[in-house]
Formats: sequence, C-alpha cells, structure tokens
Amino acid sequence: MLDVLIIGAGPAGCAAALTLRQRGKTVLLAYAGESALEKARMVDNYPGLPHMPGSEMMALLRRQAQEAGAELREGLVQRVLPMGYSFSAMMGTELLSCRGVILAAGAPKAKPLPGEEGLVGQGVSYCATCDGMFYRGKNMAVLGGWPEAAEEANFLATLGEVSYYALAPHDLAVLRPQIARMPGKPVSLSREGEKIRVATETESRAYDGVFILRPAMAMAQLMPEVTNENGRILTDDQGRTNLPRVCAAGDIAGMPYQMAKAVGDGCKAALSLVKMLDAAGK
Amino acid sequence: MLDVLIIGAGPAGCAAALTLRQRGKTVLLAYAGESALEKARMVDNYPGLPHMPGSEMMALLRRQAQEAGAELREGLVQRVLPMGYSFSAMMGTELLSCRGVILAAGAPKAKPLPGEEGLVGQGVSYCATCDGMFYRGKNMAVLGGWPEAAEEANFLATLGEVSYYALAPHDLAVLRPQIARMPGKPVSLSREGEKIRVATETESRAYDGVFILRPAMAMAQLMPEVTNENGRILTDDQGRTNLPRVCAAGDIAGMPYQMAKAVGDGCKAALSLVKMLDAAGK
Repeated sequence: MLDVLIIGAGPAGCAAALTLRQRGKTVLLAYAGESALEKARMVDNYPGLPHMPGSEMMALLRRQAQEAGAELREGLVQRVLPMGYSFSAMMGTELLSCRGVILAAGAPKAKPLPGEEGLVGQGVSYCATCDGMFYRGKNMAVLGGWPEAAEEANFLATLGEVSYYALAPHDLAVLRPQIARMPGKPVSLSREGEKIRVATETESRAYDGVFILRPAMAMAQLMPEVTNENGRILTDDQGRTNLPRVCAAGDIAGMPYQMAKAVGDGCKAALSLVKMLDAAGK
Repeated sequence: MLDVLIIGAGPAGCAAALTLRQRGKTVLLAYAGESALEKARMVDNYPGLPHMPGSEMMALLRRQAQEAGAELREGLVQRVLPMGYSFSAMMGTELLSCRGVILAAGAPKAKPLPGEEGLVGQGVSYCATCDGMFYRGKNMAVLGGWPEAAEEANFLATLGEVSYYALAPHDLAVLRPQIARMPGKPVSLSREGEKIRVATETESRAYDGVFILRPAMAMAQLMPEVTNENGRILTDDQGRTNLPRVCAAGDIAGMPYQMAKAVGDGCKAALSLVKMLDAAGK
C-alpha cells in the first residue's frame, strides 16, 4: 500500500513529497489541470530562485520530487474515502489505497453554479466512475470543463442517454456521436420533482442525473469529512486537518497565495503526517 | 525612517526581505552569529535547490535579498523598544528607528545560566551601551560569548572595574590590560544582598553588575513585550505577534526547524506587516 497520496503537484505538493521521501515514505503526486505557479509569468520573491518564470520553477520542482523518488502522475482524484486505518481514492477509473493524504490541490478554482451545492448527492455528482451506474437507462447531463470530461461522458453514454454542455471551451472531438452536444453554457441548476433542471442563458432541460466534471474538485466533494470554511481547508499550525492522517498545504489551506508559503506548508504537513503514520505503525 | 528592521538574516529573514522589497518597503536585515542553515552540511528537501550545502544556500539567499534592495548588516540587535507609532532599536552602539519589526533570529541558541532569568533587570543586563552608565565607578562582571563582548567590556572598563569570564572560547586579544581575565566558565548566578554572585566550577565572586553578552539575545530581553511560550514566540497563522507591527518568522516562531517552513513564515510575516504598515499610513 502507498504511504501518502498527495493531491496536487504545485509547490506545496512537491515540497511535501521531498520531505516525505527524505523520511522514507512512498509518495504518489497526483495532479490535474495547471498549477497557479505555472501561470505566473515571473516570480521574484521565492528565496533561492531569483527572477524565474513560474512554469520553469514548476518544472524544476517536479523534477526534483521525481528524482527524490516520488511518483508523479496526471489524473484527477475525484473522491477520497476514509476507510478506518487507510484511505481509498478514486483517480480516473483507478482505485488507490494509501495510509495518509495531503490535500494540496490549490485554491478553489471553480465557482459552483447557482443551485449546485444544494443538489450534491441528490442528482448532482462529480464522479462518473463512482455514480454512473445509478443512472443506467436514464438521461444524464454532463457539464464538462476539460477534455477528460468528454472521455467520462463517453463512458456514461454506454449506460444511458447523455447530453453534453461545455462549462469552458475545450476539445470535444472525442465525444461519441450518440451524445447530444448542447449549445450555450450552463448558468444554473434547480430541482424539478425527481429531476434536475439545467438552464443555459437561452433554454433549460431536465435530467435524471447531472455530472459536473471540472479539472478541479470542489473541496466539499473530494473529501466531505474535512472541515472547510470560506473556501479554505481548516488546519492547525502544523497543517493537520480535523481528520487523522489528512493534512492540507498551500493555497487550499488559505492565504497568502505565495510560493514560499506553499512550500512551508508542504514541509510542515509532510512532517506532521510522518509523525501520525509512524505513530499508527507502518 | 526605516520601514522594517528584520532581526536575523537566515532563510526567514531573507524571505521576508524579498517580499517587503517587492512591496516597496525599505529593509534592514541585521544578523549576528551564524544562521542554523549555514551549519547544515547539505540540504536536500528545499524545493528548487536540490542537494546544496547550507552555507551556499545562505549566501545565495542573502545575495538575492541585497540585489532586491535590502540592506544587510552584521551586528547584534540588543533591544527593541516600542515607541508608539515606531520602534527604537539598539544595534551595537547605534540607535535605529523603524516602523515595523520582524523577529527572525532563529531558535533560542543560549540556555540561560541557572539563576540568570530571575535577576534580569536587577543587576543582570544584556546591553552594555544601554545600562553601562548605571554601574559607573562600580565593579562589573562581563560574561562574554563572542569577540564583540570583549569590545563591549572595553567600553565598560572606561566606567568602572571589569572582570571578564568567557562563556565560550573566543579571541580575547582586544581586551584592555586593566580588565581581569577570570579563569573557568560561569556556571550560575545568585543574588547576594545588593550584589550578584558569579560562580564558576572552582570559585565565586560578587559584583555590582553582571553583563551577559552572547551572539544571540534571549527573546525575553530583545523585546520583553512580545509573548513567548516554551522557547517560541507566539504568532497567529499569518506571523503576527501580540504587538502591532511586530511579526515573527522561522525557527524563533516554532518548529519544525526547516528551511521551507522558514521561508513560508518569512513571506507571510512580510505580507502581514505590509498590511499593518499601510493601514497605519506610511
């Protein structure tokens, strides 16, 4: 079993990986979408690397984490379930097991749609692999924000009828022909009896199930057991969340959104997790 | 007037300096003695600088801070006094004024002598320049831990009779001939009527005043108004202490003693201080 799954391979995740490797833990660094650092044209206040484009820094940190023995893998972790002494994580279609988790997926990137949050688990889902079977033979909307969503929609189309809405522009070439490509961008969700109504600016339709597939997970969906407040996961000053063996680091754990703060968080979270894992017996 | 005095030019101090300069603040980075980083043979878990000796990293960070426009100066800051809207700091024989302070002097380096803490301000002093005049014409002991202490003893010898004890081996060549060089290392202090008794392993003598001059200040002496507990300065999660416009960062603010954590602290403290300075009106 993997020791630690780090969700997010930005500066916080990479810093955590380095320290965990130094302490002999096995590490999987999972990432999806672009880190905020990669988008920074130039970073001038990171100690040790004066005046460097963010994308170059990000490449440097990931290479360093890999050279230290961490496994780096692209893929969206959709859900993490505490299972007593370990955790199960759904990453794409793969089920992973690990002893500890570091949440380092960055600041919340997606604002939920109006109505979305109240319908979670009541017809709105974020994980086709997890929940698709519940909608066998029914009609589903996929609200997709990245190419991966189109792949998931193809899977759902093997179960029922699928309509695809793009939350953001992306390549839809892979979509199977039987999937309806809906025009317009979804602007709100609402309940309608047993169904969920998806409204765009020009029209609305009702579905049995709605899958919202963005390159970042709403924190509340990824791990609903972890306490969050005002868009940040709450931690103590050593990066521990309310759940044993779950730490958070970097932008996801609050401001300031700075690289130096993120690596500090990552290092602290890693050391806290090492203590908890060692206390739990390896 | 200087915007920010940073006490300590290790990773936390340098990180704070970079961010303060980015926000247009004037910065003096004051340091005395060696940073813990400089003593690290090799650092392997700092993101961005794989496998580098600590001394090399330290030189890199200080150069970067200077290139960003921070002034780097060697000298022991002995006392910082809140003066309403500003602070006065005694650095060697120089009196500085600043609007804000970042305490980044590292983990407590000196264990106080038995009896020392209870006698502070009652015959035991850490600042020859500040308190020397109170002992004019009297007999004083200097307990010195670094070459600077010998210089201070020479100043005290212009005021009264001085006996010099070495707390740690260091060059005493500069000591004036009229200063008595005492054999043995001091092991405890105790009150004796109006006097303070200094004991070594083999003998003891009483003095009107005792000056303890180490390359690091006891936190309680540097700024007694700042709350500390179990050897660390207490801060909130943004590096703010209990005093307005005083932040703390790095090892002085608590474990883990890690470079990544220190730079994160420095960055947060700098941003907190910028907010407080800007709110106070520059």
